[in-house]
Amino acid sequence: MVGHTGRHFLQIPGPSNVPDRVLRAMDMPTIDHRGPEFAEMALGIMESCKRVFRTKNPVLIFPSSGTGAWEAAMVNTLSPGDKVLMAETGQFSVLWRNLAERFQVDVETIPSDWRRGAKASEIEARLVADKQHSIKAVMIVHNETSTGVTSRVDEVRKAMDRARHPALLFVDTISSMGSIRYEHDAWGVDVTVCGSQKGLMMPPGLSFNAVSDKAIAASKTNKLPRSYWDWNEVLKANQLGSWPYTPATNLLYGLRESIAMLEEEGLENVYARHQRHGEATRAAVRAWGLETVCVDAGEYSPVTTAVFVPEGHDADRFRKVVLENFDMSLGAGLGRLQGRAFRIGHLGHFNDLMLMGTLSGVEMGLDLADIPHKKGGVLAAMDVLKSKDEGVVEVPRVAVA
Amino acid sequence: MVGHTGRHFLQIPGPSNVPDRVLRAMDMPTIDHRGPEFAEMALGIMESCKRVFRTKNPVLIFPSSGTGAWEAAMVNTLSPGDKVLMAETGQFSVLWRNLAERFQVDVETIPSDWRRGAKASEIEARLVADKQHSIKAVMIVHNETSTGVTSRVDEVRKAMDRARHPALLFVDTISSMGSIRYEHDAWGVDVTVCGSQKGLMMPPGLSFNAVSDKAIAASKTNKLPRSYWDWNEVLKANQLGSWPYTPATNLLYGLRESIAMLEEEGLENVYARHQRHGEATRAAVRAWGLETVCVDAGEYSPVTTAVFVPEGHDADRFRKVVLENFDMSLGAGLGRLQGRAFRIGHLGHFNDLMLMGTLSGVEMGLDLADIPHKKGGVLAAMDVLKSKDEGVVEVPRVAVA
Amino acid sequence: MVGHTGRHFLQIPGPSNVPDRVLRAMDMPTIDHRGPEFAEMALGIMESCKRVFRTKNPVLIFPSSGTGAWEAAMVNTLSPGDKVLMAETGQFSVLWRNLAERFQVDVETIPSDWRRGAKASEIEARLVADKQHSIKAVMIVHNETSTGVTSRVDEVRKAMDRARHPALLFVDTISSMGSIRYEHDAWGVDVTVCGSQKGLMMPPGLSFNAVSDKAIAASKTNKLPRSYWDWNEVLKANQLGSWPYTPATNLLYGLRESIAMLEEEGLENVYARHQRHGEATRAAVRAWGLETVCVDAGEYSPVTTAVFVPEGHDADRFRKVVLENFDMSLGAGLGRLQGRAFRIGHLGHFNDLMLMGTLSGVEMGLDLADIPHKKGGVLAAMDVLKSKDEGVVEVPRVAVA
Amino acid sequence: MVGHTGRHFLQIPGPSNVPDRVLRAMDMPTIDHRGPEFAEMALGIMESCKRVFRTKNPVLIFPSSGTGAWEAAMVNTLSPGDKVLMAETGQFSVLWRNLAERFQVDVETIPSDWRRGAKASEIEARLVADKQHSIKAVMIVHNETSTGVTSRVDEVRKAMDRARHPALLFVDTISSMGSIRYEHDAWGVDVTVCGSQKGLMMPPGLSFNAVSDKAIAASKTNKLPRSYWDWNEVLKANQLGSWPYTPATNLLYGLRESIAMLEEEGLENVYARHQRHGEATRAAVRAWGLETVCVDAGEYSPVTTAVFVPEGHDADRFRKVVLENFDMSLGAGLGRLQGRAFRIGHLGHFNDLMLMGTLSGVEMGLDLADIPHKKGGVLAAMDVLKSKDEGVVEVPRVAVA
Repeated sequence: MVGHTGRHFLQIPGPSNVPDRVLRAMDMPTIDHRGPEFAEMALGIMESCKRVFRTKNPVLIFPSSGTGAWEAAMVNTLSPGDKVLMAETGQFSVLWRNLAERFQVDVETIPSDWRRGAKASEIEARLVADKQHSIKAVMIVHNETSTGVTSRVDEVRKAMDRARHPALLFVDTISSMGSIRYEHDAWGVDVTVCGSQKGLMMPPGLSFNAVSDKAIAASKTNKLPRSYWDWNEVLKANQLGSWPYTPATNLLYGLRESIAMLEEEGLENVYARHQRHGEATRAAVRAWGLETVCVDAGEYSPVTTAVFVPEGHDADRFRKVVLENFDMSLGAGLGRLQGRAFRIGHLGHFNDLMLMGTLSGVEMGLDLADIPHKKGGVLAAMDVLKSKDEGVVEVPRVAVA
Repeated sequence: MVGHTGRHFLQIPGPSNVPDRVLRAMDMPTIDHRGPEFAEMALGIMESCKRVFRTKNPVLIFPSSGTGAWEAAMVNTLSPGDKVLMAETGQFSVLWRNLAERFQVDVETIPSDWRRGAKASEIEARLVADKQHSIKAVMIVHNETSTGVTSRVDEVRKAMDRARHPALLFVDTISSMGSIRYEHDAWGVDVTVCGSQKGLMMPPGLSFNAVSDKAIAASKTNKLPRSYWDWNEVLKANQLGSWPYTPATNLLYGLRESIAMLEEEGLENVYARHQRHGEATRAAVRAWGLETVCVDAGEYSPVTTAVFVPEGHDADRFRKVVLENFDMSLGAGLGRLQGRAFRIGHLGHFNDLMLMGTLSGVEMGLDLADIPHKKGGVLAAMDVLKSKDEGVVEVPRVAVA
Repeated sequence: MVGHTGRHFLQIPGPSNVPDRVLRAMDMPTIDHRGPEFAEMALGIMESCKRVFRTKNPVLIFPSSGTGAWEAAMVNTLSPGDKVLMAETGQFSVLWRNLAERFQVDVETIPSDWRRGAKASEIEARLVADKQHSIKAVMIVHNETSTGVTSRVDEVRKAMDRARHPALLFVDTISSMGSIRYEHDAWGVDVTVCGSQKGLMMPPGLSFNAVSDKAIAASKTNKLPRSYWDWNEVLKANQLGSWPYTPATNLLYGLRESIAMLEEEGLENVYARHQRHGEATRAAVRAWGLETVCVDAGEYSPVTTAVFVPEGHDADRFRKVVLENFDMSLGAGLGRLQGRAFRIGHLGHFNDLMLMGTLSGVEMGLDLADIPHKKGGVLAAMDVLKSKDEGVVEVPRVAVA
Repeated sequence: MVGHTGRHFLQIPGPSNVPDRVLRAMDMPTIDHRGPEFAEMALGIMESCKRVFRTKNPVLIFPSSGTGAWEAAMVNTLSPGDKVLMAETGQFSVLWRNLAERFQVDVETIPSDWRRGAKASEIEARLVADKQHSIKAVMIVHNETSTGVTSRVDEVRKAMDRARHPALLFVDTISSMGSIRYEHDAWGVDVTVCGSQKGLMMPPGLSFNAVSDKAIAASKTNKLPRSYWDWNEVLKANQLGSWPYTPATNLLYGLRESIAMLEEEGLENVYARHQRHGEATRAAVRAWGLETVCVDAGEYSPVTTAVFVPEGHDADRFRKVVLENFDMSLGAGLGRLQGRAFRIGHLGHFNDLMLMGTLSGVEMGLDLADIPHKKGGVLAAMDVLKSKDEGVVEVPRVAVA
């Protein structure tokens, strides 16, 4: 290998590749966050976020990483001792649970083998059993970045409705928003948690809470203390196009541009593109004779594919070989998957030939790292990419019903 | 007025003008925050922050605005019901107090007319009176951005020492760090709170806590719940050059560059430059026959000058005239100074001719807005700038004793 | 002085300050100059140049500095031994003449004291005397950057018409285009020569020839050899949105943006802004008791002011003092003005406060360099700037009649 | 296909992909080209060019496209009626010949089938036959971008030496410099012609002449008129770090950075990398069962591979399919190869996975465009890339002997 020349392949499942347009948009002088030009920009961004999150309600933007938005969801709606129901799906669901526990929230976890999504039926059963409605919220991760499993949020919603349970629905969309179909309003989500650095094609540093009226109502009476994350302060300031503190102006420049790009492509096309790249990636994995972590074809993630290395092999060593030989970053196996699986990110500002470079790097790396596999994953992926060219959709501005 | 051509003059007291080098540094592809290249960068930045904050102890960096670092100082060291002593010096001291109260911290405030700094003698008196040592922390704002008053932190420290009181010392340096001399270790500060967007010449989006051993010890036993702001999680991850969540990678690129610029100029030169620009600004204010908010010559801020408009005139209307005619943003009077004063920021990436453009805009604006004043403030400022050219200092890397 | 912090003041009469938008536009990946995306951009730029040059005829763009466009004007229309009439107005007219002589063109020069523009009456007299029409072209510099004198091109045209002489009219607009009113078609210019780095707010690297039908006709039969500069090759390729060689793609990105900015402001407003800044600058010069090189109030340049230093003083030493103390570049006296005059550029992406910073730097520099002068030039300039705020004009797309 | 998302693949044989570092370096304020900061930069760039061109003699830099440097070589050394010997190797040799003829230079062409390089033996024969030494220069193209054939310049030099003929040796290195081994001094080249936009990893807009003492001597007496291209004017100004006209400052910023990158990688490593990518590309072509234009394995180009499509198929239609489906630009067949061949550029800022993306796009495009071929070219390329990882060389600054 010949050193770092050409572009690094950043194929972790986020941060994703940031478009030049977005980086260039951020690369402009910071303006007065109390002036009229800022307010106009801010109000425009707030509206555009509603279109992407598919909601008529406010989308709050925090200067923080996505973890901050996890915390914001919690401290604005819950009180110490409140019970929540968490569907474990992988490392990020575990981390979110741990966070809840730091705030004296009592988390009931539905365990899992980390190879499938949140089970609507189990959630329904637990809620039905909770006659006193002591469960205040159901928490799920839409796309489990650690496993490449996408939970069916709409089915969880339907299960909650069937159980006639008043719990709030919290959904982490950090790695799905802007890449996988998502409907905050239509799916009856109460708090959608998001971060900027994945499907939104931004660098990390902004996080989001889309909030239902019911969630806002909860925030009026809950007891967890908060200041930075306080929704009501932000909502009040947001009405005038400002924030209760200095916002991350240059990141907002970038967000304005990245959402413009998503809307130029059209959200439907964005979703279809990710779907297609997920299929091509899995075709390669199958051809290599390897196994994806996700076992349910209805839950395959369009944005990340986690792949087991055969027993006795070390996924982290494989990733190191790939990084050193081909200047590509792949995602590590996290938590109980550490060393057992690696993850291919195929999300954000991405296209067919970038995917083929990525899969070629994986295939060559498997060989150099002596991971048993069959040749030709790249050929299988090309077969998918060649045959799926009908997907261009007209780009009407997507309206929220 | 001739439309928006040429460069906007951003003369609010922060965000300050971001250097091109810093913007360009941020304008690079996001890298894997778990990879070796990131770790090397992160460890380097952490060390360089120590040099700027003048400490051998850790400086924690949060992806958040400065307000977040205010909160972090509090939730990591205090428990509900704890008492703290706050020297009121202006709007930002008030906001910080309000934040404390949201966490059930009992704030004893030393009131003020907002025209002078924290009074060491009063602090000493209160501490001496507190025989039970129920006061857990003393909180002061180093440079009160709302008034242009710089408190003498070292004298507060001495007062605390004289009182032999074990309270922690919290100092907000959001608008002083990187522009006004500051010594975290030598002044015995326990928690230094900072933000990226002022003297550090960065866009907003990063905040800082420099922490003493005593503060860290307090964080082991205090009771306020926290997750995002938790020092111990960050400190643990920082040892390996990482963070417990996705850091704001591109802002870190910028920070690396901005600190490099500060060190190229030399911190002593940076301080002297701000001092000199403060003097020139005040010379202009005096020549105009206007009054600064700050009344104590030993507390004049080198980074921002707040100026009263004569009774019966509206400072906000004046600022609007300046913005519309000369494309310059000035700071508003905040809180009880609203409409009564305006603020000139002269900090960060700034030089003599930018200051003269700024002061010219103020002088012309005073005229256009019919604010009674004498002509020739700009001449007075030029007299200061011309005579103070001896200040160049050699640039040895500043060592922490 | 405190080192290079803040923005450098680039107040030479070009290259002028390049807007961030233009730099950022250039900072994008180079594309295939034979592809459809490039062709669309190129055709758009060609049209927009016509609007700025005020012509319905082609405007050719060369990847070269402005000197190249001087040469292109010559080698495409003249033959060895041809006679041309050149109105000497300063250093740039002399350099252009020298260039002509390298191609065996016989230049008849109308001499001058370098303090006034091309004299229409003298040109008329020479043309009338040329009964055989041996003079093939009249060459003038619209704005003599070396002296701050703007020639009246329309009067030269009228003089040529009165003389009923068929000579071509060549006009150098390198430092006037995009800042001083200019009408290629209405003024009957045959070849307009331009460069990118002044009123067009671009970095150097592109040059221009706007060409009349008569000039194109001359290019079909003239005898000077050429290849790179050959109009007919370029015109042919331009029809399809391409060039006969690899064009400077990234500079073209910048040009597209800079012309967009000129048109957003409106050419009439652009002209008025430069006029006003010229007036303010001269007010300062008068108040200092110094003398401009230009002696005719009808020929004052709106983009650059050349100022004599008093006898016995060295303008270059003064400029050095200004550069070292205030980080501002001023233009040197050129040719016979070397050491006797300095030049203040006030063109391109520029505004009132940048001008005030500039003039403050000059005033302080005069003092530091011990150049005899009166104080208060900056006050005089402010008086002009304050009183001239009526100039905003609506911005209709300027149509070529 | 789903629109333009992700990065465009610019795989024409130049302009090549410009590194972010180079674009960002260009994206900085233009400075005074007559000031000390500029001079220091310019002198440094001139020295660094010598290291890349491998010469102790001057390397002149023109603000122009490469075509300008072709012309400069000619007009500085030859006189009308002079005879030169040109080895035809493809479209660019033809264009250079045409240019010569525009200046009344008498070109004797050694014809070729465009599938091989300059034949040293034929050149030797012609020179031996030229007893009167009427041939003033031998002109060859080092890397024929239109065919993917690299001529052996050192053998041409040896042939000239054997013939004891005093002709100058002109070499076009526009698409080889900075990617293919080249030795201006050691190979006794008199004028090396170059452009910025290929191996030098820059946008187009700069061109180069490296000149021997013998070439400079010729420029003192030759008769072709010139001004812009005049070496002696440039050489004189260059001694002080300036140019006789406004240089393309921002492109020079980029050049400084791109040469720094070449030297960080090490020229030997750069050459080896291109060699390896050429081999991998040809392995793919062979596996597809297609034919390269180049027929001599000793002359395969490391930077571009021209590939015939089978009789009856249209290479331009194929390229259109690739562009529309995979957002990749490939080079067209030029001149007599139009429609019969396409060209894959694999030069400049490039790496293994970018090459694999490129070759995948070609393989999928062949299928979609119904070009008969065998599957698996990408597998063959991967075999090359995997097995060639020993090539890392230490990076000593390359010294010119």
